[in-house]
Amino acid sequence: MDISQFKLEDFVVKDLGRRRVKSPIKLSKKSGDGIFNYIQDGERILYDASINSIEYYEKTGQIPVSFEKAGPKEFIFFEPSKTKVGVVTAGGLCPGLNNVIRGLVMQLWYRYGVRRIIGFKYGYEGMVPEYNHPYVELTPQTVENIHTLGGTILGSSRGKQDVSQIVDTLEILNINILFTIGGDGTLRGAHAIHEEIERRGLKIAVMGVPKTIDNDINFIDKSFGFETAVSIADRVVRDAHNEAKGAYNGIAIVKLMGRDSGFIAANAALTTQEANYVIIPEMYFTIEGLVRNLKQRLQTRHHALIIVGEGAGQYFFKDSEVTRDPSGNIKYKDIGLYLKQKIHEHLEVAGIRHTIKYIDPSYIIRSAPANPSDSKFCNLLAQNAVHAAMAGKTDAVIGHWNQNFTVLPIPATVRERKRINLESELWWNVLETTGQPTQMI
Amino acid sequence: MDISQFKLEDFVVKDLGRRRVKSPIKLSKKSGDGIFNYIQDGERILYDASINSIEYYEKTGQIPVSFEKAGPKEFIFFEPSKTKVGVVTAGGLCPGLNNVIRGLVMQLWYRYGVRRIIGFKYGYEGMVPEYNHPYVELTPQTVENIHTLGGTILGSSRGKQDVSQIVDTLEILNINILFTIGGDGTLRGAHAIHEEIERRGLKIAVMGVPKTIDNDINFIDKSFGFETAVSIADRVVRDAHNEAKGAYNGIAIVKLMGRDSGFIAANAALTTQEANYVIIPEMYFTIEGLVRNLKQRLQTRHHALIIVGEGAGQYFFKDSEVTRDPSGNIKYKDIGLYLKQKIHEHLEVAGIRHTIKYIDPSYIIRSAPANPSDSKFCNLLAQNAVHAAMAGKTDAVIGHWNQNFTVLPIPATVRERKRINLESELWWNVLETTGQPTQMI
Amino acid sequence: MDISQFKLEDFVVKDLGRRRVKSPIKLSKKSGDGIFNYIQDGERILYDASINSIEYYEKTGQIPVSFEKAGPKEFIFFEPSKTKVGVVTAGGLCPGLNNVIRGLVMQLWYRYGVRRIIGFKYGYEGMVPEYNHPYVELTPQTVENIHTLGGTILGSSRGKQDVSQIVDTLEILNINILFTIGGDGTLRGAHAIHEEIERRGLKIAVMGVPKTIDNDINFIDKSFGFETAVSIADRVVRDAHNEAKGAYNGIAIVKLMGRDSGFIAANAALTTQEANYVIIPEMYFTIEGLVRNLKQRLQTRHHALIIVGEGAGQYFFKDSEVTRDPSGNIKYKDIGLYLKQKIHEHLEVAGIRHTIKYIDPSYIIRSAPANPSDSKFCNLLAQNAVHAAMAGKTDAVIGHWNQNFTVLPIPATVRERKRINLESELWWNVLETTGQPTQMI
Amino acid sequence: MDISQFKLEDFVVKDLGRRRVKSPIKLSKKSGDGIFNYIQDGERILYDASINSIEYYEKTGQIPVSFEKAGPKEFIFFEPSKTKVGVVTAGGLCPGLNNVIRGLVMQLWYRYGVRRIIGFKYGYEGMVPEYNHPYVELTPQTVENIHTLGGTILGSSRGKQDVSQIVDTLEILNINILFTIGGDGTLRGAHAIHEEIERRGLKIAVMGVPKTIDNDINFIDKSFGFETAVSIADRVVRDAHNEAKGAYNGIAIVKLMGRDSGFIAANAALTTQEANYVIIPEMYFTIEGLVRNLKQRLQTRHHALIIVGEGAGQYFFKDSEVTRDPSGNIKYKDIGLYLKQKIHEHLEVAGIRHTIKYIDPSYIIRSAPANPSDSKFCNLLAQNAVHAAMAGKTDAVIGHWNQNFTVLPIPATVRERKRINLESELWWNVLETTGQPTQMI
Repeated sequence: MDISQFKLEDFVVKDLGRRRVKSPIKLSKKSGDGIFNYIQDGERILYDASINSIEYYEKTGQIPVSFEKAGPKEFIFFEPSKTKVGVVTAGGLCPGLNNVIRGLVMQLWYRYGVRRIIGFKYGYEGMVPEYNHPYVELTPQTVENIHTLGGTILGSSRGKQDVSQIVDTLEILNINILFTIGGDGTLRGAHAIHEEIERRGLKIAVMGVPKTIDNDINFIDKSFGFETAVSIADRVVRDAHNEAKGAYNGIAIVKLMGRDSGFIAANAALTTQEANYVIIPEMYFTIEGLVRNLKQRLQTRHHALIIVGEGAGQYFFKDSEVTRDPSGNIKYKDIGLYLKQKIHEHLEVAGIRHTIKYIDPSYIIRSAPANPSDSKFCNLLAQNAVHAAMAGKTDAVIGHWNQNFTVLPIPATVRERKRINLESELWWNVLETTGQPTQMI
Repeated sequence: MDISQFKLEDFVVKDLGRRRVKSPIKLSKKSGDGIFNYIQDGERILYDASINSIEYYEKTGQIPVSFEKAGPKEFIFFEPSKTKVGVVTAGGLCPGLNNVIRGLVMQLWYRYGVRRIIGFKYGYEGMVPEYNHPYVELTPQTVENIHTLGGTILGSSRGKQDVSQIVDTLEILNINILFTIGGDGTLRGAHAIHEEIERRGLKIAVMGVPKTIDNDINFIDKSFGFETAVSIADRVVRDAHNEAKGAYNGIAIVKLMGRDSGFIAANAALTTQEANYVIIPEMYFTIEGLVRNLKQRLQTRHHALIIVGEGAGQYFFKDSEVTRDPSGNIKYKDIGLYLKQKIHEHLEVAGIRHTIKYIDPSYIIRSAPANPSDSKFCNLLAQNAVHAAMAGKTDAVIGHWNQNFTVLPIPATVRERKRINLESELWWNVLETTGQPTQMI
Repeated sequence: MDISQFKLEDFVVKDLGRRRVKSPIKLSKKSGDGIFNYIQDGERILYDASINSIEYYEKTGQIPVSFEKAGPKEFIFFEPSKTKVGVVTAGGLCPGLNNVIRGLVMQLWYRYGVRRIIGFKYGYEGMVPEYNHPYVELTPQTVENIHTLGGTILGSSRGKQDVSQIVDTLEILNINILFTIGGDGTLRGAHAIHEEIERRGLKIAVMGVPKTIDNDINFIDKSFGFETAVSIADRVVRDAHNEAKGAYNGIAIVKLMGRDSGFIAANAALTTQEANYVIIPEMYFTIEGLVRNLKQRLQTRHHALIIVGEGAGQYFFKDSEVTRDPSGNIKYKDIGLYLKQKIHEHLEVAGIRHTIKYIDPSYIIRSAPANPSDSKFCNLLAQNAVHAAMAGKTDAVIGHWNQNFTVLPIPATVRERKRINLESELWWNVLETTGQPTQMI
Repeated sequence: MDISQFKLEDFVVKDLGRRRVKSPIKLSKKSGDGIFNYIQDGERILYDASINSIEYYEKTGQIPVSFEKAGPKEFIFFEPSKTKVGVVTAGGLCPGLNNVIRGLVMQLWYRYGVRRIIGFKYGYEGMVPEYNHPYVELTPQTVENIHTLGGTILGSSRGKQDVSQIVDTLEILNINILFTIGGDGTLRGAHAIHEEIERRGLKIAVMGVPKTIDNDINFIDKSFGFETAVSIADRVVRDAHNEAKGAYNGIAIVKLMGRDSGFIAANAALTTQEANYVIIPEMYFTIEGLVRNLKQRLQTRHHALIIVGEGAGQYFFKDSEVTRDPSGNIKYKDIGLYLKQKIHEHLEVAGIRHTIKYIDPSYIIRSAPANPSDSKFCNLLAQNAVHAAMAGKTDAVIGHWNQNFTVLPIPATVRERKRINLESELWWNVLETTGQPTQMI
């Protein structure tokens, strides 16, 4: 990502209006009294935590790109006793969805005193009458134990729905705040909903909790579920290593999630230290280049372990027919199966006996419950989402950056995906760990 | 299995000859002295632990089918200081392989004083010169920590090898005992090796440790790795349940190992209590029967979870070409993909919106490390295999039955597979847990 | 245990009377029709599965000691629609309590059609008016997810309560079946309740599900929670091994549960293969004997790992004051702390630098959720308890023996505890694994 | 911590001298070529990532407090083929020690080509002749699988050793770089060793990898092992919750590590969401204040869960005798036992029936293997420690701050401990989660 394409103005979060209601959360306004302070308007976290930021300021006199700090405000926009809230989860499963739902409900109920919270079923479908999905009342009792379960108690779906009907539903149900928990597509949907709300002159906050198991949302250092995903991938890669070593010239290929970004693949290589090749969507490689290197390895070590991100090498398929899922995402061809087939062909031709095992653990990863670290993180994300929404922030998502929770405008976060820079320390660490060459062409 | 096809004589284990060497293991021959007793020849465990055995004896005057009890003997056949041992692992991976290897080495080394133990690499291939696989010296030091690892440090392979060359190798290396850790095919191979040994008039013991993650070896109540397999399958099924519930009319299909026998599938249903359908190789069903029931379920519950054993429904493919793996096993067509496709077609035709997720965790299950229960079990199996082999038992495997370790002749155990009796309590428990009908045709 | 003290008559289970109600569970009475058969009166499982049983019969003409096989009967005693059931959990926590509760409720509700099930809170206290604990309605909905939680949703307590008041409560609430889930003390209580019921001429079934994390109930080969306990202990022992090796002459002492019986200690030694000493209640040892051996070990290996069962070495405290817990159990002095202190003193005197770490994981073990294997086992125990109780069996517990579920009279199971025979294979395996001497005196 | 007590100069890391050796690691010096760049001198990470740093610069014209960025340098100080390295682990166990050792060895060997690496046994003891501990050769082969094990393969010890003898050892063995993996005391020791080295005019780098399971080292946002510790504590707290709920007025007290800082206690409360009270060393409370609140809770909820950091409430013991461990740390009195006793007394006096369970999982936590996230982190810490040491940095430690690895002078990091600010967001989150009052006095 090229940060120079972004300006400070891109990170100004929209407000529904003046905040006149005293928050029911009792905090302090001064340091030294032993009580946490309300977050002041104007508290911001720098994008670049290095002294480059100082240099930038020195040169330009401008505050560098920075993000609004999230947290409880002294005055809020919505009167809790009159506030009605909707929650929706959309897109693919991700560890922590239920933790976020629970965190929203607990925070709204116990900290702000909001008593009317409903969950829409099966993503945006649940907000469109024709699907006829009943909604669900959410109370502390209904969500008490859901954080131990993977999946989402609300169900999910992919695909665009009619924004006008969605806003009709919000109006009819008198919803004041809509929390959307979802990825790129869901956030674009949330932005469209916000625009329709604005067009109608309504005072409804739309607040996103960004969900991306791929960890590919810009300006957010870690998305919920990512660590859990890596920790499960770690085990699978360790097992795959056993498969590779268990056969003469054994090759194990593990496909890990990552449509546009190879963060899970790269991190699983760093946690296990067992992979010999990591192939990610951000890189260009050829089958010939890979196989050339692989042959050398088999000759001396007699086994190899390959991790491949699902979005890698899609250019191999450019002449095939494009298919799309209901969200409009291009359905990716299975690069794992392709690699398995091609490697097999090349080794056959070369007369090299071998065994290839292909492992795709995607569903096992995405439907698992959150690990303790994600459990905490989901809860804090949810709490900060509630603070922001109650304060009247809208068209926004909750982020995390440089040890702080932040509030970001949706448009800035969805402009492009976060991807691994092949010049970065992260990718260099992967190259060092695997020993794979910088180029395989 | 029809036990009436077996006679007591089928369970007489072969001996290499008279046992003249005093065992280095010091035990007792009488009760009451606080020291464990040597196992006497003639100690046997009944196949049928119910009073039917008494009735059978009353009627026929014959000892019912029963198995030799395993354990340390006062006199053994091989002189430890002159004994050389070979170990081989063959067939697919299974949790606990390394534990068995470690158990054999530790027992041979520390309890019997055997100092020359070698491991053949990559299954029977490692015993055939042309493959040129080097063998591995096995000592307490080399195996110390391997029980924490899945896979097999010796590697494995499938496929028959030339028995004559294998026995040549045993002769050339002066091997006295060969431990073969493997499944049905490996045991048949071991039996063939034994016959060649016998033909040549050699005194080499062949002792099998039966490995079948499917738990499908007759006269053995539990094979090593099976419990670990079920415990990992348990987690996968629980996650699949989240996938099913996460979508409107969400259907998750989990394929679990079991070529001929559905034990893993059945047990995973009993541990999780979440599956709605269990489909196993032992049963006959039709797509139409399954879908008819499934439609009803979706109408009221809007999700369904199906567990299918890999060997189920192979009759759907009877007109397709038969392919075989290197062991000569028929390669099974993927019943999971078939079910996914067929269910999808039927629901499409019926105009029922749905989402199907297909999960095949086989490699993740078979390459995992043994859980504590299997860890203990592998060790005891290995120890008893050493006792039996040192005593000169041959053409035999170590089993477990009615709380006791046993020694069984290979031919009796490989005559047919252990399968789930559809009239048994186990299958009835599955029907009760899933609520599926007795017949889906 | 000396089986010769028991007669076949000791294992005849009491009935409330003739079974006149046709079971709502539809099964078969003949083999070969593909449907599981009702369990017939007279089906029994032999205590001794070896051919000794045949020899016994040959000599005496008597059926050897054997147990009633559990399972569904064609005719039952209670009419489901008129049946009211109470459930109580008593004594210490144990993994699987909630699984058993869930299993009882699901089976009663869905298989028998019983709709009135109540749970008493905090053990027998909940059945005595003065404590004023409200009872809990149990339905499939309230128990749906409890199997993922450790502990017991009903709470528990120790201590005897007035039997007369308990039976008054049963009468007032019109309870027909009382399920008591608990250990030795709870079962004795259940027997007393049964006797009072009998004295009053009531038709109330009392059915126990034996709970003993120590696995010390006679005639039951495995009690629920035991495997989970061993698997958690396994991890703790592995960690303790790290502690021992982490310091020069590092000694780690792990105390594991087992008041009268060292089964958890012995099995944790067999699963981990790391312990150097296992000290159990069944054995006699002296500090001097232990330390003498320990000194030798430290000299060469510089670390040692000791597992001690909580009930071991209580004779060291015989002159101290006896204290009892509310159940009347003698409160055991902490043998772990005692060992730590005494070993330290002896090594100090001998001028041997050392570090001792003492680890007591009891609460972590007993409050954990059941592992998959126990989860299945708990469910089957519960289902069989329901079958037996609906059939009018009383003063009984559900057991498991030689691969079968059984029904046993309470008095036979509580006459004495199951303990490790120091001449048994199990203990010999422990000695072999640890390398500790047979005697340390 | 009051950052105003620190100046930029406090964070200047010492160098052994001019770097003249070209690094064997081939990287780039310009952006855009797809290759990671060497870290330049002068790259620094801001302590405060908020725009306060900009404001500070605007007001003072000074660069705010910031830390040197770690990473590979183009020119290094030591010639790899002539470099000899020593590694020592000291203080208490912590998850990840073996991962750090492995990371150091792998990086030195494979990336820099250093072939002579030795490990000192049992902490600084191993560097003092009188203890006579042999040292260990460390090679890729010896460390290959140690990352799956808890503890430290080198062993550890507490206590100061004679600095002069330690430097003698370094001289005699021709060590060029000493890596010390340890906490506050170990780092103070490392600093003293550095001073002696400097006094003698030697060119030996001393590089610390800070180990503190308590996460209490200043200017380091996360120390290795901390996340693993929290994830294990999470499970223990969850189990303790079952213990509390399992008895009428059940109270469970979990003591978690944290001598001066309550980070583990606070985070375990946030991951589990189950604790009702968190008591940490940083706060003042009275037994009366706690019990007053507790009584109210028991009246309505009948159970309570208390997490207490080991260093909390030490003022209760101020009149007792002070004892110290071999490192000179004051041995803390057991606040957990104290709480248990005092709460019991108060509730007895008040006539409130109750049960208290006390759980101290410290050893189980600290001796566990690293989780995947810590595994990755340890490896990167180790790699950066090697980069810094090879570049001739000395008297320094590797840290992590605002998403970057950093190099910090030892004196700055050990001046005081990192503690939880009771006015911080972290502590407020704990108060919100537990519902405990701000003050309990």
